[in-house]
Amino acid sequence: MIKSFVKLISKNNVLEQIRYASQALPQLSSEKYNIKRKTFGTIEPSDVGYFRSILGEERVLTDESDVLPYNIDWIKNCRGQSRVVLKPRSTEEVSTILKYCNDKRLAVCPQGGNTGLVGGSVPVFDEIVISFALMNKIDTLDDLSGALVCEAGCILENLDNYVREHGLIMPLDLGAKGTCHIGGNTSTNAGGLRLLRYGNLHGSVLGIEAVKADGTVIDCLRALKKDNTGYHLKHLFIGSEGTLGLVTKVAIHCPVLPKSVNLGFFGVKNFENVLKLYKSAKSKLGEILSAFEMADFDSIDCTVKNLKLPNPISEYPFYVLVETHGSDEAHDSEKLTRFLASEMETGLIVDGTVASEPAKMQTIWNLRESIAGAGLAGGYVFKYDVSIPLKNYYDLVPILRKRLGDKALKVFGYGHVGDGNIHINVTVPQYTKEVSSLLEPYIFEEVSKVNGSISAEHGIGFRKPMYIHYSKDQSALQLMKDLKQLMDPNGILNPYKVLPDAV
Amino acid sequence: MIKSFVKLISKNNVLEQIRYASQALPQLSSEKYNIKRKTFGTIEPSDVGYFRSILGEERVLTDESDVLPYNIDWIKNCRGQSRVVLKPRSTEEVSTILKYCNDKRLAVCPQGGNTGLVGGSVPVFDEIVISFALMNKIDTLDDLSGALVCEAGCILENLDNYVREHGLIMPLDLGAKGTCHIGGNTSTNAGGLRLLRYGNLHGSVLGIEAVKADGTVIDCLRALKKDNTGYHLKHLFIGSEGTLGLVTKVAIHCPVLPKSVNLGFFGVKNFENVLKLYKSAKSKLGEILSAFEMADFDSIDCTVKNLKLPNPISEYPFYVLVETHGSDEAHDSEKLTRFLASEMETGLIVDGTVASEPAKMQTIWNLRESIAGAGLAGGYVFKYDVSIPLKNYYDLVPILRKRLGDKALKVFGYGHVGDGNIHINVTVPQYTKEVSSLLEPYIFEEVSKVNGSISAEHGIGFRKPMYIHYSKDQSALQLMKDLKQLMDPNGILNPYKVLPDAV
Repeated sequence: MIKSFVKLISKNNVLEQIRYASQALPQLSSEKYNIKRKTFGTIEPSDVGYFRSILGEERVLTDESDVLPYNIDWIKNCRGQSRVVLKPRSTEEVSTILKYCNDKRLAVCPQGGNTGLVGGSVPVFDEIVISFALMNKIDTLDDLSGALVCEAGCILENLDNYVREHGLIMPLDLGAKGTCHIGGNTSTNAGGLRLLRYGNLHGSVLGIEAVKADGTVIDCLRALKKDNTGYHLKHLFIGSEGTLGLVTKVAIHCPVLPKSVNLGFFGVKNFENVLKLYKSAKSKLGEILSAFEMADFDSIDCTVKNLKLPNPISEYPFYVLVETHGSDEAHDSEKLTRFLASEMETGLIVDGTVASEPAKMQTIWNLRESIAGAGLAGGYVFKYDVSIPLKNYYDLVPILRKRLGDKALKVFGYGHVGDGNIHINVTVPQYTKEVSSLLEPYIFEEVSKVNGSISAEHGIGFRKPMYIHYSKDQSALQLMKDLKQLMDPNGILNPYKVLPDAV
Repeated sequence: MIKSFVKLISKNNVLEQIRYASQALPQLSSEKYNIKRKTFGTIEPSDVGYFRSILGEERVLTDESDVLPYNIDWIKNCRGQSRVVLKPRSTEEVSTILKYCNDKRLAVCPQGGNTGLVGGSVPVFDEIVISFALMNKIDTLDDLSGALVCEAGCILENLDNYVREHGLIMPLDLGAKGTCHIGGNTSTNAGGLRLLRYGNLHGSVLGIEAVKADGTVIDCLRALKKDNTGYHLKHLFIGSEGTLGLVTKVAIHCPVLPKSVNLGFFGVKNFENVLKLYKSAKSKLGEILSAFEMADFDSIDCTVKNLKLPNPISEYPFYVLVETHGSDEAHDSEKLTRFLASEMETGLIVDGTVASEPAKMQTIWNLRESIAGAGLAGGYVFKYDVSIPLKNYYDLVPILRKRLGDKALKVFGYGHVGDGNIHINVTVPQYTKEVSSLLEPYIFEEVSKVNGSISAEHGIGFRKPMYIHYSKDQSALQLMKDLKQLMDPNGILNPYKVLPDAV
């Protein structure tokens, strides 16, 4: 089994991302987290026969080695036991599949690029995987209004390349862009690197087509910036992680491609100065500020050492990456230079480099974007993605270092300061319950105390339903449960995810 | 009755906005639109007694002349028959009121600033009006993150003035800002003048506290930019016009106050050139573009003549207002001057004026913002607020002029080109069924043909449920109905609004 899995890595794009991880198969999610299978139907040969009659032989995968990659998540934390993967090519096929599954009480797990970090995109037991990989057509692009309409399985980077040819960019950008799907981005309300500038998906998604559990197609796909005709149904599907319906098409607003892009990478001596620098950047760079990211020493050190990526400046306790998007190279460069000069004089910036050549900017972005994967080389990583009010933003990292002592290899923090969103990674040689119980629910309790969010952008998925009450009160959880009951009464859509068992 | 109503105008702020309208009482909505009262409970003296025990004497209005202003909408199209207005001061009071009303099947009509244009904010029969006017406290403002938390009854302009003192602005701005409430803005997903730059409320509202029909308080008020913990419940209350719950508090993201604001007002010879100018502005002004508005000759002519406002330039077939918000006066002014010089040379701009002094800018904005009220001086105005793909944006105006001939005084169009949103006004000496039937459903059919929206930003309210199917298909309408049934099973929240009777 392990051998065939290793073989798959080299030939299968879905798993290319796991290249930094060790090759052992992860433990079954159901055993690791002691989960009981719910009373869904069990897939029979006649069901497979039905799916083949709809999709043909090639789009119904049942071979164990073909199905395996769809059972394992990117960080190799979860492993499901699905035996069937379906690859629909159209909304009608998704609708037909769901209607059948709903009638037979067969549970399904929708899967986009499988880049999620909370186990939401892989099955837990034998849920049928519905992969959107073949639903990757672009419908229309209006280059004056910026409205792009496309299928859910389009890869984010492909869309970005496409709209760039029309003078536009995608409003979101994230490390997994080469693999993640726009449908998955939408279903998980993905945040990413430029939310600071272009806003979140609830703002930039113009329309959605989705299929309910019973196969009903909900068409809210109009590509209009303003449409106040009744309930704004599309938001039910943005961020509900495939538990209320499967997103099949997305209409999204693409901003104008900036004519001028600049990047600064700075060394900063303490976190207090990172915050002061953010305040200054908001004021001095104003409307051209498109990203304000920070990483601590260990985040960058781990990336440099494990992935052999170059750090363009010397070593500092904190690093800040500032990106600008603008329409006038001379104006932008003047603003950035003025900001840099002023903050080197105040001492907020100790050292730094500024780039506008694409290759150099890419090197710096690579360093930042690779932090998420770099920790995996050390063995196992506990990953937390939380929102914390800015004045407490970095507090948890030193607290956890002290709490874990030598039980952790590293505790490091990095993230989107502009959004109050920090990623905290704890690397260990291997997963142990001891470390896990020192971290959880402790981290969530601490986040809750300061009115933060226990999941800023990664979602709840399979890993966090038991902690959701730290961010949602009983009334909100009851309303979530009521909505689930309304839209998916048999509970077939992505079970064991998002909703806690007891509300 | 008419006399007391006229007297009220001078003493009551709620009605100050009606100053442009004639003074006759509008016909009862139930008669005008032939609506049947639903089987709700009827308010008894004991109910009034209960409300007085909760709110005290002064916050329960029952005097006919006190209640009248709450029964009539801004454009004097609708008149309800409520006999009780409640003015809670806290979420707990709203919750207590709703629990009581739900138990007794008493219908309620929530009311903010009563500036809506589709009759959504006034009762139809004897619904109890719940006015948010006294829930006007600001809770907190974080001037680094930009998060403002406040009660639903805060007036938009007051909030804007408050956050400006902290170097921020509200992300929305509309003509009714001096009267409208942030809770009403949120409940109706108000768009307005700067959506182009700062996005819509689904993007900028960070959190909401709302009360369900049964009195349950849904607390999703965390003031975080990123919070992916389960279903994004707040969006159920944004744009559902008080039919799924009453918004009691709002957390909203305020952008940085621009250091430099410029305004251009241009004459353009035809609509094709308006579109070309928009494309050029997006490219040349880029990130500083904060508004791109257009008005046709008749829109401005009507405003100049009826309201005696000055037009700063000569007469042209079309006018374009371009606003910039930026952080550097010299850079912004250079961009705007370059844009102006270039487009005067191409001939897209025939004539124009540019202003950066607040008083002059205000004069120009007044001209634009007063169009909505100017038509009322002529008698009655049929108002339509639709989204149309840009290439067809202005088509309906000449079509309607031809269709109506001398049955209309004027047909004019103006709006937010950057959002694909046009307001079409048809002025007539008085409301007649003949003109109404020439306009409706004709306009909605035409909008539907080009995949537009029959209500871009005004909502559905009381006036448009019968036309909602032009923008929502049967499955979407059924899901709306299901949500209504789930969250307000007795249907007491803002009845006769948003949802069509037959789905």
